[in-house]
Formats: sequence, C-alpha cells, structure tokens
Amino acid sequence: MAEVRFRISISLDGYTAGPNQSAEQPLGEGGEDLHEWVTSLAAWREGHGREGGDDNPSTEAFEIQNRNIGAQVMGRNMFGPGPGPWPEDPPWNGWWGDDPPFHVPVFVVTHHEREPLELTDTTFHFVTDGVEAAIGRAKEAAGDRDVLLAGGANVAQQAIGAGLVDELHLSLVPILLGGGERLFDGVADSVKGFEQVRSIEAPGVTHLTYRRLG
Amino acid sequence: MAEVRFRISISLDGYTAGPNQSAEQPLGEGGEDLHEWVTSLAAWREGHGREGGDDNPSTEAFEIQNRNIGAQVMGRNMFGPGPGPWPEDPPWNGWWGDDPPFHVPVFVVTHHEREPLELTDTTFHFVTDGVEAAIGRAKEAAGDRDVLLAGGANVAQQAIGAGLVDELHLSLVPILLGGGERLFDGVADSVKGFEQVRSIEAPGVTHLTYRRLG
Repeated sequence: MAEVRFRISISLDGYTAGPNQSAEQPLGEGGEDLHEWVTSLAAWREGHGREGGDDNPSTEAFEIQNRNIGAQVMGRNMFGPGPGPWPEDPPWNGWWGDDPPFHVPVFVVTHHEREPLELTDTTFHFVTDGVEAAIGRAKEAAGDRDVLLAGGANVAQQAIGAGLVDELHLSLVPILLGGGERLFDGVADSVKGFEQVRSIEAPGVTHLTYRRLG
Repeated sequence: MAEVRFRISISLDGYTAGPNQSAEQPLGEGGEDLHEWVTSLAAWREGHGREGGDDNPSTEAFEIQNRNIGAQVMGRNMFGPGPGPWPEDPPWNGWWGDDPPFHVPVFVVTHHEREPLELTDTTFHFVTDGVEAAIGRAKEAAGDRDVLLAGGANVAQQAIGAGLVDELHLSLVPILLGGGERLFDGVADSVKGFEQVRSIEAPGVTHLTYRRLG
C-alpha cells in the first residue's frame, strides 16, 4: 500500500520559501539558500543532467527522501506563479523546461481546470477537487510505490492537518528568512506531534524524519 | 573571555513555550512536553535532587549545553509571571523554591527595580537597563567561564538580534504547540543565518548547535 511522504527544506524560522515569490524568484527572496545542500549534491546533479557535485551525509538523506516514488503531488504555487486562471499565450508549463525531473505522474492541486500536460516522461494532472482527492489519485497511480508530496507549504499544511501524510522529512537549514510561507501554521489544531524516526547531520543542514502518530 | 550561549527547547512549529502562560502553567499549555527529554535524564535529575532517570544521547547534549557556566541571564517571564511591578506580600521568589538549581549569579531582565535576592547559593540580580547591560554584567560575573542565556523567547530575540549570542543550542522536539512565544520572530532583519556546529540525535529530540556568523 502506497505511503505518503512529504519532504521539504525549511529555514530555522520555519519558512519553506522566502518572501515575494515571483516567476523570476520561484522560491522567494533568500529561498534558494534552502536548497543549496541538495543542488550541490552529485546525486541530485546527475538526475538533473549536471556534472560534478558533492558526496556527503546529505546524499543518504536525499536517497531516503526520494526512494521508491511512484507519483507526486504539488500545489499550484510550486508548479507556477499564481493565483488565477492558467495563462494560454504562452501557456505556463512549469519551472523545469521540456524535461521535468519527476519521471512519474504529478498531480497539481489547483482551483483552475486544465487538460493533462505531458512533457517527456512526466505527465502533470490538474486536480480541482482538493488535496485529499489529489493524494487519492496519486496513490492509485503509484501502485506499490510511494507518493511524494512535493510542496508547497499550503498544500502540505492541508495534507498534514488532515492526517494524510505518513512520513515527514524536513531538511533544516540554519538561515532566517523572516517571511514567506510558514509550514506549520494552522496545523496544530488537528496534529499535536510526530514520532522522531531519525536525524542525519550533514554540512550546513540537518535532515529530520518524523512519522505520523496514531 | 566569556562566551554567551543560549540553549532552549523548541517545538517543530518554532515555539519555546505554549499559549496561556500563568503561575500554574509557567511553560504555557503543552509547553512541559518540550522539556520531557531533559527532566527524564539522570544527569538533570541529579542536579535537581531527584533519583533515577535515563542515560541516552541527550546526556551528552545536556552536558555540552551546561558546561563551564559562570553566570546566567533570563527574562522576567522566565523568573516569574508578569508583567507589572514585583508583588510584595507574598514576594515572588521564582519558580524553583528555596534552593534554585542555578548555583551561579542570575541576571533577570525586567522593567521593575528590585533588590538582589539570595536563595541558598544562587543570587538573582534584577537589571532594568536592558539585555545588553544584563549580558555585560553576567560576563563580568562569569570571569573565565561562559554566560548562559536561559530564555525566554523575548530576551533571546533581543540578544540574538543584537549579535550578543555566540552559540545557539536548540533542542528540537517534534510537537506542535500552535501558539505561544516564537523564538525567531523579528530577528531576521539583523541576523541572516548561523553556522551549523553539530547535531545530536536522541530519543524524541534532536539537539542542534549553531554559531554566530561573522
């Protein structure tokens, strides 16, 4: 049975993207620093057609976060800038060019209908009836494999709050963003805590894994 | 030369105490769960006149956090409920009874003047001219040893924001408090980040050490 995993990089003050997100700055001001640990890894670079890179304890965390993925779920803001209807001329086809790095079906939670978009071996499906429906469809598509909830904060909050996330992987980076999207806002009413599974110390980041209680 | 260390337990959503702090609930609703890792340690219990307890990787973190302390600094809310002038009948002498567990001079940052209070081998000094002054006096009292900034969030924010904290020790507990005092609010304007020194994985908690950049 497919499990749902959420992994995200988070600042010490709890933000998963910086303030003032835009098409030019999809991660907001300062948000790119959250992902330096991963974009500098040889394991990540290989999957994104780039050479070189590091091998350090973050490699293990990266592999744990990404193993056995059969489908992904993401929010509208992770797929593209918003809000509002999808632009048609030119169409917005994601941040990743013609060969997105997912290689599995991706379910995008949005208020706006759109036909599926196939780019190389990744098909984006646009789901307008909410996070739970998107996760349900992703589980079906994943079969025996797991579903990766890719982000952003809003979709993750809804999924965590509804008890739909089995495993939570946080890569905690010691920067302060001071604004942006805060991961755990509005979640505490329904979720009181998690069981700690492991933590991995790596250069400039600590990777924390938690499991849903109950 | 004395260094200034700040150590605090923090929830996954960034709070160092729960909502609705009071004399009956000095850590706020749910806040006691932040400290279970330490109050269950044999090393802590011994220092607080209690028997039994655990020995696990948290012991090492506890010893690192508390080694070589020559003086402490704390905020008014950590010493007692507030705000307002000190009550006189009966006087408020802290949460810890007649034998407080500090055994070094403690400098309490407050808006309200008060004579020093000596309880067994701990003397509380009440400092009305701000956090920087309190840390200065604590450094003087500590001599060759270090100053521990004990909390709470407000005093810590001021000290971190002013670049007065050399080492930051966070014990990250995977609970969600949903409200209360948030450690890093208002700090990001002056501090952009920290250097990660180490992290220690322990049962139900990860201990993170950071150092001030620059």
